[in-house]
Amino acid sequence: MEKLFGAIEAGGTKFVCAVGTGPDDLRAELRIPTSTPAATIAAALAFFREQAARGRPIAALGVGSFGPVELDLASPSWGHITSTPKPGWAGTDLAGELGRGLGVPVAFETDVDAAALGEGRWGAAAGLDDFVYVTVGTGIGGGVVAGGRLVHGRQHPEIGHLRVRRDHAADPFPGICPFHRDCLEGLAAGPAIAARWGKPAEELPADHPAWPLEARYLAELAATLALVLSPRKILFGGGVLQQPQLLPLIRQHLPELLAGYLEAPEIAPPALGPRAGLLGALALAEDL
Amino acid sequence: MEKLFGAIEAGGTKFVCAVGTGPDDLRAELRIPTSTPAATIAAALAFFREQAARGRPIAALGVGSFGPVELDLASPSWGHITSTPKPGWAGTDLAGELGRGLGVPVAFETDVDAAALGEGRWGAAAGLDDFVYVTVGTGIGGGVVAGGRLVHGRQHPEIGHLRVRRDHAADPFPGICPFHRDCLEGLAAGPAIAARWGKPAEELPADHPAWPLEARYLAELAATLALVLSPRKILFGGGVLQQPQLLPLIRQHLPELLAGYLEAPEIAPPALGPRAGLLGALALAEDL
Repeated sequence: MEKLFGAIEAGGTKFVCAVGTGPDDLRAELRIPTSTPAATIAAALAFFREQAARGRPIAALGVGSFGPVELDLASPSWGHITSTPKPGWAGTDLAGELGRGLGVPVAFETDVDAAALGEGRWGAAAGLDDFVYVTVGTGIGGGVVAGGRLVHGRQHPEIGHLRVRRDHAADPFPGICPFHRDCLEGLAAGPAIAARWGKPAEELPADHPAWPLEARYLAELAATLALVLSPRKILFGGGVLQQPQLLPLIRQHLPELLAGYLEAPEIAPPALGPRAGLLGALALAEDL
Repeated sequence: MEKLFGAIEAGGTKFVCAVGTGPDDLRAELRIPTSTPAATIAAALAFFREQAARGRPIAALGVGSFGPVELDLASPSWGHITSTPKPGWAGTDLAGELGRGLGVPVAFETDVDAAALGEGRWGAAAGLDDFVYVTVGTGIGGGVVAGGRLVHGRQHPEIGHLRVRRDHAADPFPGICPFHRDCLEGLAAGPAIAARWGKPAEELPADHPAWPLEARYLAELAATLALVLSPRKILFGGGVLQQPQLLPLIRQHLPELLAGYLEAPEIAPPALGPRAGLLGALALAEDL
């Protein structure tokens, strides 16, 4: 019998659970509103148990979780959600409770890292060992894959908080990151765009000056990633990238920033859309 | 009989060759001036053959080379020096000629990546899976280790050419990088310091305003590395770092830049000094 795997995209507003082997073979799927840890985890366990009872037991489970999370396998807190402000969730042993409840091994990553893995397995970075997945929405996050493996380091990359060069005359907006004020996220995430221009990003027309400025900041990010990681591809997704004029503008700025010193990596949209995280969690389970 | 390994630090002015098993067990060592490829490689081969004749044959050879080099194992040009301006060396199949000449497997990396590996095996980053080795001298280079492995990507990191934030009022110096003008190397490598202040870095007194400015640029680099890679440690070496006041100033600026969002990685000097590259080449051979 073919082995089946379980996946959970554990988000702050909903948990999406699925059983299957890949994007074209998801046998069952359930969305659970994220309430208390006890109720949410119980509902997820019930889903996988029911699937097992129906002849669809899973061999392993992959989880892509909202954070912050503990990813150090040597830590007694591995698989826990750590210091989240989300009521009740700080300190939840998410991976442990799921694994013990189902009796299967669990792989555990951040949501954005899981999405990066999903794109690397079945999406726009399929077959690539070196790429970065960037998502620009209410925040800016990224999953970094180098040599075929996620870069974690001590914790995990936080590319949204990179400090970028800016031209204060062209963009006097002070930035809104509560930590750094004018880091990338404070200048270029959705809420920063809305605060700078006085209306939500999605209401700004395609020819609004917001977009060349946004592309310039994201090209600064792409140049930094190119110089530190030498990736083959950088995927830009998330709500803000729904603006189709952005990617061509980023592609235009990037070679100017690299100035011929190295070839610009390919700049592309992700291919899996909102499914990337769930499918990445599935890939995690399959790789265990 | 204990296995011995060969190492070559292949520099633009000299090749250093050694046979042994580690920093406290180098059985023989030879420095060869870098002349033509044919003469230099012949001298290196003669050294290792003589060692073999004396009962010290090597099981494998590691090479840390000046560049640019081809590191893609799938490329027919793997192990070649590619587009160097150094007369006669462009297109030299360095790894291939050494491997065929000695009949042993060859591991091949850039000089700075080899130095990073040396520090990771026997130096200031021993036992760490996630660290960056930065060298600031006539240029600025870096070797990135993530998850215990060198980050190559499509080519290799070029962190010296990162664009850094600057305060044009405080530092109107335009920068001297021929590609980017005011990238990190163009603002903060040894020649940039000399050009800005009108005398070589080593002649500037310890209380010269050059150093707080230099530390600020290097702290920008450290913050970028922390946010992209989450390393445990960043080693700063090279000629410019001979100024002992620099590291404490970098350590002081870095937490300001990260602003409490993540813990600053440890900033430390390398431990192996000019031996890092040679010892890293040895580590490469041992890991084959």
